[in-house]
Order: sequence, then structure tokens, then C-alpha cells
Amino acid sequence: MKVFVAKGAGFCYGVKRAMDMAYAFADKNKGKKLYSLREIIHNPQEVKKLESRGVETVEEIGEIKGDAAAIISTHGVTPAEEAALKAKNVEEMDTTCPYVKKIHLIVKRLKEEGYGIIIVGDRDHYEVRGILGYAGQGAAVVSDIKEVKKLNVRARMGIVAQTTLNEAVFSEISCALMQRVFTFRNSEARIFNTICDATHKRQEATVALAKRADVVVIVGGKNSANTRRLTELAKGILKDVHHIESEEELKAAWFKGKKSAGVSAGASTPEWLIKKVVSKIKSYGRK
Amino acid sequence: MKVFVAKGAGFCYGVKRAMDMAYAFADKNKGKKLYSLREIIHNPQEVKKLESRGVETVEEIGEIKGDAAAIISTHGVTPAEEAALKAKNVEEMDTTCPYVKKIHLIVKRLKEEGYGIIIVGDRDHYEVRGILGYAGQGAAVVSDIKEVKKLNVRARMGIVAQTTLNEAVFSEISCALMQRVFTFRNSEARIFNTICDATHKRQEATVALAKRADVVVIVGGKNSANTRRLTELAKGILKDVHHIESEEELKAAWFKGKKSAGVSAGASTPEWLIKKVVSKIKSYGRK
Repeated sequence: MKVFVAKGAGFCYGVKRAMDMAYAFADKNKGKKLYSLREIIHNPQEVKKLESRGVETVEEIGEIKGDAAAIISTHGVTPAEEAALKAKNVEEMDTTCPYVKKIHLIVKRLKEEGYGIIIVGDRDHYEVRGILGYAGQGAAVVSDIKEVKKLNVRARMGIVAQTTLNEAVFSEISCALMQRVFTFRNSEARIFNTICDATHKRQEATVALAKRADVVVIVGGKNSANTRRLTELAKGILKDVHHIESEEELKAAWFKGKKSAGVSAGASTPEWLIKKVVSKIKSYGRK
Repeated sequence: MKVFVAKGAGFCYGVKRAMDMAYAFADKNKGKKLYSLREIIHNPQEVKKLESRGVETVEEIGEIKGDAAAIISTHGVTPAEEAALKAKNVEEMDTTCPYVKKIHLIVKRLKEEGYGIIIVGDRDHYEVRGILGYAGQGAAVVSDIKEVKKLNVRARMGIVAQTTLNEAVFSEISCALMQRVFTFRNSEARIFNTICDATHKRQEATVALAKRADVVVIVGGKNSANTRRLTELAKGILKDVHHIESEEELKAAWFKGKKSAGVSAGASTPEWLIKKVVSKIKSYGRK
């Protein structure tokens, strides 16, 4: 069986950077109690690997205690959380992705300039929660086009996207939001495409893969928004699409009678895991 | 026959203001050679009335000569034309509509801040030519959605509308432009709805009229962009729509067998002309 791997599958720049920073920080702070404020990235195997170096993943700042060192996850936190962490006086390493940090700066400036702010993305995702913190009170999150009509909009609105959003979804929601803003005279819709380049390339490559292969396997955390979006995109093109977290979930039946398989992976899926998946799929072909 | 007149038909704020300013200026400068740089508004009867006070309408600044006084039309001019007029050292009255002037300021600022600029509107209309002058080299005009794919866009674009543009057309073109901008990473589409309130109300009222009446008559200059757009809007709803410049063009046959007629008019159509049209239509009903 031919196995194609999507270009740009696996660790993106921000994830690779966060993991490198976290390991260096853990080494430097040996002896201290080590924390990661939320999962450093959305990949269970990588989180476990980091935990094996003594880093405990916690959900809230209140759980960080004693002579500690804390890592801020790649998804970022709110300014209130940043301040609360500072007040703890613990060693700190902020691995927030620079592309997410850029959105923090954009919404901060929009707020200062008096724009209403809308973030398009998953409202439960920590990246979006962090951005919302910077956008301040009155800012809103839109996860679905159906929500657009219920939103409070005003004459000057700034709109940003979660870095891993589906591009077609962002375009569609932005157009709908713009039309709502334009019911005001002298209005302005200021729309920032903050979907990152890695997301763009990964989505594009996954669509190409789904057009080419007979069956597609997407590898990544079930809680990884960008991985779930790859699965949705591929399902828009092909019936046989499977989202797995590791090679153990693969089933031989998926590949029966298929000539080719495609493998893509989320931004937080490590190279070694993709290789394991590819080699197991290839082994089915040899049987 | 019942005759309905659309709310907001006739002189808008900018046109009324321009005519008042022009007459006062003509009175004050009696004895001087009086010019209007292009038609003060796009209504042939009103232009003639102003000409009967000794004001000559010219197309180019070169035609303004001697100890003169010159009026800038309500559609505005380019900064180069403003400078050329200043250099002539003639008495000057700028009747540019404040809503058009506001667009000049928006595009000037967008240019200073490094945005690419697109103006959605009629490229041959003097309002658009004036705005284009302020937007500077590299700015482009889009008159039709088909032109969007050929445009040079970059990662940061500012988009404005001619004050009298059809709102649905602006929305559609803006969405298409936004999608082109979003092919760039870290991109921003900054879209200003500069369609004026009078246009909005007039278009809304004309659509309501076309839904209610059996035949619709639109009164206004054949060279008036906003009048032509009212005609298009009404034609989207009703077959029997007629664009006339004066009551002399009315035909009895249009109203045969009709129970009601609707009358709407462009921003540069005076009240007295609308009244003449209404009374002539009513006279058909009495025959």
C-alpha cells in the first residue's frame, strides 16, 4: 500500500519552540516543584513525556504552590492569570506561541482604540480564553455562523481568528459579521486574518491528501482543535477518514481493498508518532 | 390613481447645503466671472437655474480665467485640482459634501498608514475621481465584482465605498475583496461603510415602494449615479419602472390599468420637480 504523508503534518514552529523551552526550563529548575499551567500542547504522549521529567500539569494557578517553577502553555493565558502568576513569585517560563501573542497585541490595541471585538474560534479553547482576556469586557466569541445574528455589534468592530481556525469558516463568518456591522452608517469592520501559516499549509495539504488517497488517517490529540479541524476538512472530501491519537487505534479493516492511504497530523503531533503510524499502515499492505 | 412618494426622495443634506452655498456665493461675488467646476449637482434643471444666475459650468480648471470666483461641486475634487485652483488666486467656495470629505480623510490616513486602498464605485464619477486623488498612486477602483480577481491586493488593505453605492453591491464586493486579502498570512481587511445615510434611507424606501405600487417612476438626472441605482433596485422587484428627468417624459400608457404609482427621486432632484411629476401622474387617473 502506498502511504502519503501530508506536507506540514506534525509539530508547528510554536509547538516545537514550546517543547524546547519547557525541557530547558525543567533542566534549569531541577530541585524545584515543576508545574505546567494546563497541557503545554494538546498531545497526550508529549504531555506524558514532559511529566516524566517531573512537570505536573495543573488547570488553575491556585494549584501552584511552594518554591515552584511554572510553565505557561503554548496556548497562552489571560492578563489576569499572568498577574496572578507574577504575584506568586515563582520562576516562570512563558511558552505562548508568538502568533498567539500577536493576537493578544492586536486585540489590546483594538480595545484601546475603542473597537468592539469579536474572536472567531472555539470558546472553550485556552487560546481563545487567553485572547478574550486581552480583549476585555464586552468582547465576544463566535464559534458558529448561527451565532452571528444574536451578537451585539456596533459601528466599529475588530475581528480576529483563533490561529488554527478553518479558513473557509473564518471567511464565511467574517462576511456575515461585516454585514451586521454595515447596518450602521459610518461603520468600519476591521478584520485580521490571524490564522497561522502552519495551519494554512497543513489544511491545504490535508485537503490535497483527501483528494488523492483512498483512506485518510489524521493523527493528534482528541482535544486538539486544529487536529479535529483537519478531520472535518478531510471528511468534506472523503468518506474514509479516521482521527486517532496513536498507532494502537489503527484497524486493519480500514485499509482492506484500498490502494493508497494518506496520513496527516495536527500541530502538536510529534514526528516519531507519525512515523509509527505510517509504518504500521505499511505493514497491513504487506500481509 | 393612488400615488405614493418614497420617504427620503429628493435633495439630500449635502445637495441642499451645496445649492444654498452656491447661491450665497454667487450673490456675494456679483460682478466677477462666476464658474462652477463641473456640475454642482447631477440635476440638469438645477444646474440651469444656477447658470441663469451667471454661473458657468466648466469641466477643467484651465477654463477658469480672469478675475473670477469658482465653486467646487458637491462631488469634490482631487488634492492636485485643489492646489491648481488655489494657484489661480480666484475666490473659491468648496461645496464638497461633508460625507465625501470624510472619505477623503479616511483614504488619506489609510495611505499614511501604509494600507493598499480600494474604492468601490463608478470609476468615471467625479466623487470617485476625487477620492482616488486623495488615495494616491496604487489605489484602485472596483465597479463590478468581476473585476475583483484581477486586482493587485496586498496583506493590508483599506476599502471604502462611493457615498451613493448600492449596499448589497458593496457587501458582495467587500466579501470577495476580503477573501483575496486573506490569501496572505497576517493580513488585514479594513472595510469602511461610507455609503451615506440619505442613500441608505432612499434605497430602502424605494425598495418598499416597488413592493407596494403597480408602477414606479424614478425622477433624477440620467447622469446621476444614485438615481440610476434607485432604478436598478426597483427593477429588481418590479417590471414597470421608468427613469425620467422631468414630468415631460411621462407617458399616459405607463399608468393604464394600474391602481397605484410610486415616485422616488435621486439625491439631486428638487422637491418642486417631484411635485410636478406627482401631479401629472394624478391627472392621468382623473381622465
